[in-house]
Amino acid sequence: MYIPQHYKNENLKEVKEFIINNSFGILINSIKGKPWATHIPLELDKDSNGNDILVGHIAKANPQWKYFIENKEVLCIFNGPHTYVSSSWYAKEEVPTWNYIAVHIYGLLKIQDEKAMMTSLHKLVDKYERKSENPISLNNLSKNTLRQIKGIIGFEIEIKEIQAAYKLSQGREQDHPKIIEELKKRDNGGGHAIVEAMIKSTIKKTK
Amino acid sequence: MYIPQHYKNENLKEVKEFIINNSFGILINSIKGKPWATHIPLELDKDSNGNDILVGHIAKANPQWKYFIENKEVLCIFNGPHTYVSSSWYAKEEVPTWNYIAVHIYGLLKIQDEKAMMTSLHKLVDKYERKSENPISLNNLSKNTLRQIKGIIGFEIEIKEIQAAYKLSQGREQDHPKIIEELKKRDNGGGHAIVEAMIKSTIKKTK
Repeated sequence: MYIPQHYKNENLKEVKEFIINNSFGILINSIKGKPWATHIPLELDKDSNGNDILVGHIAKANPQWKYFIENKEVLCIFNGPHTYVSSSWYAKEEVPTWNYIAVHIYGLLKIQDEKAMMTSLHKLVDKYERKSENPISLNNLSKNTLRQIKGIIGFEIEIKEIQAAYKLSQGREQDHPKIIEELKKRDNGGGHAIVEAMIKSTIKKTK
Repeated sequence: MYIPQHYKNENLKEVKEFIINNSFGILINSIKGKPWATHIPLELDKDSNGNDILVGHIAKANPQWKYFIENKEVLCIFNGPHTYVSSSWYAKEEVPTWNYIAVHIYGLLKIQDEKAMMTSLHKLVDKYERKSENPISLNNLSKNTLRQIKGIIGFEIEIKEIQAAYKLSQGREQDHPKIIEELKKRDNGGGHAIVEAMIKSTIKKTK
């Protein structure tokens, strides 16, 4: 994606944390020249060589997997918070804008065998059941329930490029107190999360 | 996108409202066979013939616009809330899942002339400034500020197909009370918005 230099987050550790915490992403490839997108959890993992990969699965009823082409890059989008920013909150005249966090990953997709897929599914369920009162574990599910696995296809994506856009009013630090004050006033989950990110990124710069 | 029949929202009025209220979308086309995506407001509007269109603009520094190809469909994604749903909240054994709302629109993109773009920019600013204490209006901005318009490219997208996925635990209505109770417990904006959508969609069915 196009990211002006001052909005690029090149702190790989922070970007990876973002992906882990915002793993419900979008997998995009092309079907007959048209982009096709599916909303699924895409989990950061390592392959047997220690390389970073993303792991996911889709229904076999979803035709997208028939167009997984070897050595053709797919795009994974991870959406973060976003909010409208009114330029009426700035000291000087300007056009309004939108603040947002989004990460795009390009990579090469490889279909998993059933054993690798099962390992990934175990990890996925364990990650999201960690906070459950009565955690589900694939180990305890009946054969009948697990038969559903025949209806999905697992894959891993070798990460080739990570693009992280953190558009957080950089370059107008003098207006941050007012932007933050106004965003906090609003009952808007995205705005509040953007405030947190703006404060975090300001702290880093002034250290 | 692939949407099982029971998750399809075919209520066009409701889907249009969703787009209007979640207009910060993603514009996707292909650059040399690779998907390319930009996060921008995409506003529902009508063309001079009364057809539904989406309107947006991107920076000219973003190479995406050089690959706007006549009669080739672009994809616009509108993201709604989403949340993990633990199957430990169900009466019967099942695998966990994710609930979400997402709308995909395919359409044909046409670059706007400067006059049409200005009309769209006025509407865009007026929409988002409606709630401002001191609303910005493009009418009041100086020539110098408005010169930034030379740095963007406006477009409209003739809508060809609308796909609306409302995955809200349909088919397991008996588990809704518990799912809703558990999602409400969690400090999770997406989960709370999914609860609202589940309740709204249940009301419709029982009317």
